Amino acid sequence: MSWLYIALVHYPVSNKRGEVVATSITNLDIHDLARSARTFGVRGVYFVTPVPSQQWFARRIIVHWSKGVGAAYNPTRKEAVELVRLVDNLEAVSNAIHSETGRRPLLVATTARQRANAISYGELRQRIQTSEEPHCVVFGTGWGLHSDLFDQMDFVLEPIRGPGEYRHLSVRAAVAIVLDRLIGR
Amino acid sequence: MSWLYIALVHYPVSNKRGEVVATSITNLDIHDLARSARTFGVRGVYFVTPVPSQQWFARRIIVHWSKGVGAAYNPTRKEAVELVRLVDNLEAVSNAIHSETGRRPLLVATTARQRANAISYGELRQRIQTSEEPHCVVFGTGWGLHSDLFDQMDFVLEPIRGPGEYRHLSVRAAVAIVLDRLIGR
Repeated sequence: MSWLYIALVHYPVSNKRGEVVATSITNLDIHDLARSARTFGVRGVYFVTPVPSQQWFARRIIVHWSKGVGAAYNPTRKEAVELVRLVDNLEAVSNAIHSETGRRPLLVATTARQRANAISYGELRQRIQTSEEPHCVVFGTGWGLHSDLFDQMDFVLEPIRGPGEYRHLSVRAAVAIVLDRLIGR
Repeated sequence: MSWLYIALVHYPVSNKRGEVVATSITNLDIHDLARSARTFGVRGVYFVTPVPSQQWFARRIIVHWSKGVGAAYNPTRKEAVELVRLVDNLEAVSNAIHSETGRRPLLVATTARQRANAISYGELRQRIQTSEEPHCVVFGTGWGLHSDLFDQMDFVLEPIRGPGEYRHLSVRAAVAIVLDRLIGR
């Protein structure tokens, strides 16, 4: 029985110039990540932001599709959006998973850059399938997770590469590919 | 040398009740599909709609990011969006690829439903790598490609499945996973 979670960080992330910023939660990220997560049996999708107005905005969307008019209009959307939770920071992600599973999760950072000691998809897939421990794969918005966050991570996942040098996938595409590689087929 | 293209159909597609409708082109589909396509070395991304106002809207976005202010602001976005072309229907997709490559493409439909004689990812990957013929993988918006379109297809690709029965990926996620399975790694 594998316990896989994902988290999408909106703060602290980098902007184009490498500065620390908070990005906005988008409606489509909620839907796309929730639907990909539901398809691949992910246990929960954490949207990470300490900004109260952003949490309020996201909560309205989640309630609309999981309990409101949207839930009756589109039940498959409801099943997906029910997986989404809102938290202030990565520590709150760990605490929530700890409460749910009785164990602290191993945090896995994602990045488009090659890093030393990155874990491969095959290795992480194997770990998730055989380990009793929950794992949470952490994605960044903007220009990616702020470098300070890497100190809190247990693993860094190897980047997704195509045949060339271009590697600027949207976070919606990256989440889909990572889940397919870790769980799909 | 493999020649892979993708197409996103906005008409004719099905709505929730199985009726034929035209959907709207969205800004985010343009960016996400273009970025996934560029990452995996896809040669062109066709947005299919016969609705002039929709083509006008999409052209404005493409020009902004490939030639306008956006191209200077974000050169990696430019490289991706340059792959996007606007056409009226699937025949125009075939004609355009024929002009570019000297051969008519083989059209590959995608669907979330299991269909008889579906081609597997492994088989199609092999074909693309070894064949001289161009291939175009065709995705639907809304509730999927209208059934009439399947008569024009050379292959139907097997659906993407997770461990359970839920299979309601966003088209942005589906395109990313299909390209990764056909080209990635």
